[in-house]
Amino acid sequence: MNIIGYTESAQGTPFETVTAAGRAMQYPKATTEEIDKAVALAKSAFSSFRFATGIQKAAFLRAIAEEIESLGDELVKTVMAESGLPEGRVTGERGRTCSQLRLFASLVEEGSWVEAVIDHGDPGRQPVPRPDVRRMLVPLGPVVVFTASNFPLAFSTAGGDTASALAAGCPVIVKGHESHPATNELVARAIQRAAKRTDMPEGVFSSLNGDYETGKALVEHPDVAAVAFTGSHRGGKALFDLANRRPKPIPVFAEMGSINPIIIMPRYIRDKSAQLAAQLVGSVTLGAGQFCTNPGLILLPEAKAEDFIHAMKQALSEAAPQCMLNEKIFDAYLGAMRQLLGAGAVEEVFAPSENSSAAVRPTVAKTSAAAFVKNPMLHAEVFGPFTLLVTWRSEEELEALLKSLEGQLTATLFAEGEELLSHGDLLNSMRELAGRLIINGVPTGVEVCHAMQHGGPWPATTDSRFTSVGTGAIRRFARPLAFQNFPDELLPDELKEGNPLGIRRMVG
Amino acid sequence: MNIIGYTESAQGTPFETVTAAGRAMQYPKATTEEIDKAVALAKSAFSSFRFATGIQKAAFLRAIAEEIESLGDELVKTVMAESGLPEGRVTGERGRTCSQLRLFASLVEEGSWVEAVIDHGDPGRQPVPRPDVRRMLVPLGPVVVFTASNFPLAFSTAGGDTASALAAGCPVIVKGHESHPATNELVARAIQRAAKRTDMPEGVFSSLNGDYETGKALVEHPDVAAVAFTGSHRGGKALFDLANRRPKPIPVFAEMGSINPIIIMPRYIRDKSAQLAAQLVGSVTLGAGQFCTNPGLILLPEAKAEDFIHAMKQALSEAAPQCMLNEKIFDAYLGAMRQLLGAGAVEEVFAPSENSSAAVRPTVAKTSAAAFVKNPMLHAEVFGPFTLLVTWRSEEELEALLKSLEGQLTATLFAEGEELLSHGDLLNSMRELAGRLIINGVPTGVEVCHAMQHGGPWPATTDSRFTSVGTGAIRRFARPLAFQNFPDELLPDELKEGNPLGIRRMVG
Repeated sequence: MNIIGYTESAQGTPFETVTAAGRAMQYPKATTEEIDKAVALAKSAFSSFRFATGIQKAAFLRAIAEEIESLGDELVKTVMAESGLPEGRVTGERGRTCSQLRLFASLVEEGSWVEAVIDHGDPGRQPVPRPDVRRMLVPLGPVVVFTASNFPLAFSTAGGDTASALAAGCPVIVKGHESHPATNELVARAIQRAAKRTDMPEGVFSSLNGDYETGKALVEHPDVAAVAFTGSHRGGKALFDLANRRPKPIPVFAEMGSINPIIIMPRYIRDKSAQLAAQLVGSVTLGAGQFCTNPGLILLPEAKAEDFIHAMKQALSEAAPQCMLNEKIFDAYLGAMRQLLGAGAVEEVFAPSENSSAAVRPTVAKTSAAAFVKNPMLHAEVFGPFTLLVTWRSEEELEALLKSLEGQLTATLFAEGEELLSHGDLLNSMRELAGRLIINGVPTGVEVCHAMQHGGPWPATTDSRFTSVGTGAIRRFARPLAFQNFPDELLPDELKEGNPLGIRRMVG
Repeated sequence: MNIIGYTESAQGTPFETVTAAGRAMQYPKATTEEIDKAVALAKSAFSSFRFATGIQKAAFLRAIAEEIESLGDELVKTVMAESGLPEGRVTGERGRTCSQLRLFASLVEEGSWVEAVIDHGDPGRQPVPRPDVRRMLVPLGPVVVFTASNFPLAFSTAGGDTASALAAGCPVIVKGHESHPATNELVARAIQRAAKRTDMPEGVFSSLNGDYETGKALVEHPDVAAVAFTGSHRGGKALFDLANRRPKPIPVFAEMGSINPIIIMPRYIRDKSAQLAAQLVGSVTLGAGQFCTNPGLILLPEAKAEDFIHAMKQALSEAAPQCMLNEKIFDAYLGAMRQLLGAGAVEEVFAPSENSSAAVRPTVAKTSAAAFVKNPMLHAEVFGPFTLLVTWRSEEELEALLKSLEGQLTATLFAEGEELLSHGDLLNSMRELAGRLIINGVPTGVEVCHAMQHGGPWPATTDSRFTSVGTGAIRRFARPLAFQNFPDELLPDELKEGNPLGIRRMVG
């Protein structure tokens, strides 16, 4: 069913869904009328929702978390069946989803996120009076959220994009993912119930099923103000182009993946080979490698490579087979891997004797820095439990390799003590490359916090100036609005002279 | 001459410049080699300039202001000759330009603009340790600044875009405007001298002369990271499209004009007809109407229109003839006005008997709300001393009119006391329309301050989430970068635990 405001609707013909359980044709694709209705309701809801107080929005967000929790085992079992993810991961992701909703609730309840700035006027200034100017962030309008296959909860229907858009005061229209339609419907109904019981305007949330055409119609709809997407480069780039070609272009925040280079320094690898190998294999195989922060590129000093690879093989051979999200993603994984392995100058280091969508095992390949720099095909992301080891012989070679890379979500350095402190130059090169720099840790497990930056230079994301994880994500769906010479009564509470909300403000 | 890093260069053939003094072919257009050299130097300068401290950048920005001031009368006379602007305006604009440079100097010297956020780690957290994550803004890279004809100083070579980009730590390549090439060269040399005497890396600033092709080559250059532009919708949209079609798209901040609706309520116009008419005529004719914040649309209650128009005619007839920037802009002004007046249902209220580029007089026309809503041709900007009066008969008609408008830089309401306080709904409609709302004031005279928002929904600007005036303008040229589990020694000073710079930080 499509969830449209406070109603349900299923007027269209079924489209193909591809879950861990296989392919099926049971979900009706949203029709043009259903799309128009969802957007019209969102537009109408925006006229009041944009003035909802932080306390009202917080109640709504917390109610969503409660409704999701009260789905209990039914939700967990549905996610497991559709995604093939194990129970521990699903309950963990549910916890993260609800924590995210509550974090944004606290953020807007506290209220300082609007970045209020006040410049008092000076009527006596010469030659002209100085006006009183006050500024704060206001919501953009209806946001379309494309859900992600690899996070059926935390980056889907009630995930980080939805939570941050609602927190900003923007109604949300979710385009459900073909890979977890039943999960989407359960969560969409939970949001619908939460909206009703906290008296939100109808249309503050809708969820539509469909395919690329459905998404295209949403992005091109004149009353849609912004788009959030997590997925493939091809998908993200297509939405970015559609949005920029509109008569009135709108922002698209697409997170399009990354190979997340890991740089290991000689002394570190010498001292901690086995421990590091286990740590990295754990990160590469986490969630069957289906993370945008999966370390797909490990740069190690050639002289120390043999021991490390030996230790890595040991850890890899102990990795249990895992279920991938679905057969389509498994096929894409095999295809991308085949292309990379066939690009020349690449050697398989570890490969499973058998591999299937239901029981995938990690693959590791190896090449040299010189070969890697020369061949852009080796820079491609392989979405799944795969990593490419690249051996370098000098720091010049390493620097050249880093310069050859495109924008990344993360870049990681393993080094300690003197070896770490003497590599400021390397850290400086890494700065240009990524949105998050990590020392002696793995990029997977993105912490949801205030300081997180999940977004890097193109092509990791469409806009490196914003993050899709952490409280900063709310900034994507708001714009500054200045109020000049307003009487106090007509100013929003955030900007009133007496600061009735008690928020942090900058007074110029 | 082109100013490229610390050298001068004039390899190309002359292109047509169009100043107040007429058309000429004396400035050499930058060649492909010159463009490549300027960008290569900017890229190389960025590798050190991005690490310049706030104190170093402040010294550079202040030195630019000093060098501009020390140009003395030569600069004032050159600007007057090229722009046709009167001396008072030119010295005023020079003052604003230097104040802006010093404001950005203070901003980066103080240092809190980087929006530092710190989330401390918790190694004991279960099930996984909480990492230490710290985030701050870092500069994007070389910025191309297109200079504006209507602000030969404050929005040109050393104007707000250049000042904010340099303050952020981004090298700047200026594409000089055909309408003030000598002004551009004088100021570019001043910046060059300031860079040398404050030991900035060569390439931190360059200035190139040329036409559309020159601009296109700059925007498409792979090592350019962002673009700032103030000018026509056609020009801004062309750059926006070029930038989005690059293999690696980059942000374009284009400010593309606005008609800046002014709404007048019945009691206000009844009580203050003459005063208001004089105030608005002053704003419409300021700088010969050549401001993006020129009030091009005045919405007045039909019942009170006659008295107001009478008062306005009086003020208009007293307006002195003014010199427009150049003949090309005057021709465009006449063309746009002719098109609007010919769109039907429009009546001339005041028109000069004679009009020329050197002595332009204001024109005012009138139509009804009903006619205005029906005809989008009446919504077009007429760049020059022109305004369209639109009479409305009911608040419903006024609301419908506001809904028919495209995005604007500003929207203004004239009302006082009870009449003002009872119009919250109208102010809410105005919110969706613009980046800055004004009560009982004119939109011209944009205050350079922390709270200013100069940027509105498309098509006023390409990105309503950023401002091109005020300290917030620096935000356009920076992106957040997160540092995870860094030892204190390797963190930037802004994020070190002891806060050695003493900046405002958010600690989560």
